[in-house]
Amino acid sequence: MEVMQVLHMNNGEGETSYAKNSNIQRKIISATNSTLKDAILNIMCNNNKNMPESIGIADLGCSSGPNTFIVVSEIIDIIDETSRNSGTSFPELKISLNDLPGNDFNDVFRSLPSFFDKVKEEKGAENCYIVGVPGSFYGRLFPQKSMHFVHSSSSLHWLSQVPLGLGTNNAMSSLNKGKLYISHTSPSDVINAYVSQFQNDFSTFLRSRSPEIVPGGRMLLSLMGRSSIDPTIEDGCYYQWELLANALSSLVSKGLVEKEKIDSFNAPYYAPCPEEVKIAVANEGSFIIDRIETFEIEWEASVSSNLSNEKILSSTGQQVATTIRAVVESMVENHFGNEIMNDLFSIYGDLVDDYIYKKRAVYVNLVVSLKRKE
Amino acid sequence: MEVMQVLHMNNGEGETSYAKNSNIQRKIISATNSTLKDAILNIMCNNNKNMPESIGIADLGCSSGPNTFIVVSEIIDIIDETSRNSGTSFPELKISLNDLPGNDFNDVFRSLPSFFDKVKEEKGAENCYIVGVPGSFYGRLFPQKSMHFVHSSSSLHWLSQVPLGLGTNNAMSSLNKGKLYISHTSPSDVINAYVSQFQNDFSTFLRSRSPEIVPGGRMLLSLMGRSSIDPTIEDGCYYQWELLANALSSLVSKGLVEKEKIDSFNAPYYAPCPEEVKIAVANEGSFIIDRIETFEIEWEASVSSNLSNEKILSSTGQQVATTIRAVVESMVENHFGNEIMNDLFSIYGDLVDDYIYKKRAVYVNLVVSLKRKE
Repeated sequence: MEVMQVLHMNNGEGETSYAKNSNIQRKIISATNSTLKDAILNIMCNNNKNMPESIGIADLGCSSGPNTFIVVSEIIDIIDETSRNSGTSFPELKISLNDLPGNDFNDVFRSLPSFFDKVKEEKGAENCYIVGVPGSFYGRLFPQKSMHFVHSSSSLHWLSQVPLGLGTNNAMSSLNKGKLYISHTSPSDVINAYVSQFQNDFSTFLRSRSPEIVPGGRMLLSLMGRSSIDPTIEDGCYYQWELLANALSSLVSKGLVEKEKIDSFNAPYYAPCPEEVKIAVANEGSFIIDRIETFEIEWEASVSSNLSNEKILSSTGQQVATTIRAVVESMVENHFGNEIMNDLFSIYGDLVDDYIYKKRAVYVNLVVSLKRKE
Repeated sequence: MEVMQVLHMNNGEGETSYAKNSNIQRKIISATNSTLKDAILNIMCNNNKNMPESIGIADLGCSSGPNTFIVVSEIIDIIDETSRNSGTSFPELKISLNDLPGNDFNDVFRSLPSFFDKVKEEKGAENCYIVGVPGSFYGRLFPQKSMHFVHSSSSLHWLSQVPLGLGTNNAMSSLNKGKLYISHTSPSDVINAYVSQFQNDFSTFLRSRSPEIVPGGRMLLSLMGRSSIDPTIEDGCYYQWELLANALSSLVSKGLVEKEKIDSFNAPYYAPCPEEVKIAVANEGSFIIDRIETFEIEWEASVSSNLSNEKILSSTGQQVATTIRAVVESMVENHFGNEIMNDLFSIYGDLVDDYIYKKRAVYVNLVVSLKRKE
């Protein structure tokens, strides 16, 4: 599976679209708001240097839908407030929205004129420029020293590829029997493949950003993570994949999925603990960690308060399942075929209901604020 | 009609898509190749200044389909050759692809990875960055002094709006009876409205680019134009609209179109003569015309040599009609409704056949190469 070609949030505005099922990602953005503010204030008032006249900002993994503009809006609000407080004029803002080429940029771009109108009306800011930058953040995206602030939320848990050796038709591809991600039954080869793919990818990510960010520039990253050092412990996103594997297994017993298909699927995903991020940052060497922390959000927080009639009738588990479907469907569908998607996520919803009845189900989110060395 | 919301080339890859019917625009790009080369050489070797390490380039009205990358490829080829000849390394290229927000940027972006691969393979150039910039070029698009070269082909004949006063429900909207554009029967109020809309728009265009382009930077614009001073003379694009009006009139007699609908449609389009461009440039004041000329391309040149089976069976007129349909359908459909499109362009094709049998039918293209004052 080519992650760059396959992975995208569900397009459009239907019931299973990301646009209608990205509540949890919005809450994660809100939860990091104070760290975002600190980072931007730091850029604008960096060691008594003059405030930059032109500020380069990037949002990596911007996706499409309401969340795309929430981050940008918050950044503009903070810059506007800081400019007013310091009596300087609103600086020129050069904002780059990045995602993989399969992202629905048309949808993003069609919302831009009304977004610009709002910014002009509310802030009087005419000098704000927004561009779309398609490409993988595991590689260069921007010109030299063009960025003052790089943001990424709910994206960096996606690896650049299925961990080396675990891809379809590789020697180890079927080692992780009955599972889609690291589990307590995973052999050490599988765990090691995941751990080193994350280290490789995260280092590549930092190495790619390093020449793009001005000295003293900031980066705020939030991604799915875990608190425990051991990745096989039931923590963070672990159970999301575990229940999806169980849902697929029940389709095996119905003859709708081949068992081998599950064995050979390994999600290009990794939820790191803070220590793993620290190692990658130290090894790459051009950034300093300003702040790193984890926080929890309950699965049920993904359920929107603004429900359609269809959703009001469905259980919490079904609603949680739809929010996960909006994110993982492109990949799961690519491997297992489109026909089983409705059945799969319906069973998944039932399993989520059972799980949240018995346990406190939380996502663990990892937030790291970094500074580019001067 | 809101031009910014309505106007776009036909999306997708079907028989009437712009991607499959943009042969004439490709030939226009080829015809301006030597002027393009001169302009870029001038930027790279500007008055014995050092070659810029980083070059900002924009293509305005990039559309989607094969032509989008033809211009960019040619520019990269010229820069690569010039760098090699002068023994300098390939400069950092920052390329902005601009079009209205309704353009199919998703299609453009999905072609980018293979385009980058090709550039890396052929030129060894790793430092080429391409972004999408949605918005109207009749307004600011780019940050201050960020552009060294701005290119636009087959786009600037589109006005920002239906000429002031001629829009639907305006007092003069139905003055241009039975016509869609300036014709020999047009009253002077209609002609004046077109002439001043072009002057306003072209001045706004220049005023918007002026702060964006570095001193000494270049701009190469090609658009549909005419050779004669008098816009009512049969010249250039005149007959394209005349025949489309005739095709619509024949649908009136069949009861498929209301006569008033034709009267109230005024195309947001203007094909200027060189003198009109010179006036706008002189009035705006920040550019110098380096070169201005017109050239002719026969209508039949729009017929692709690479025809599908369906097309081989259709007449030249029908094929020319399809290439025009790919460009004007979004607007014509918005006013007259989708139901009549097939009938309309079929009749149009027949009228084109008659016309090219009797006359030498040519498009007049106007090319202007400008320099930003130092």
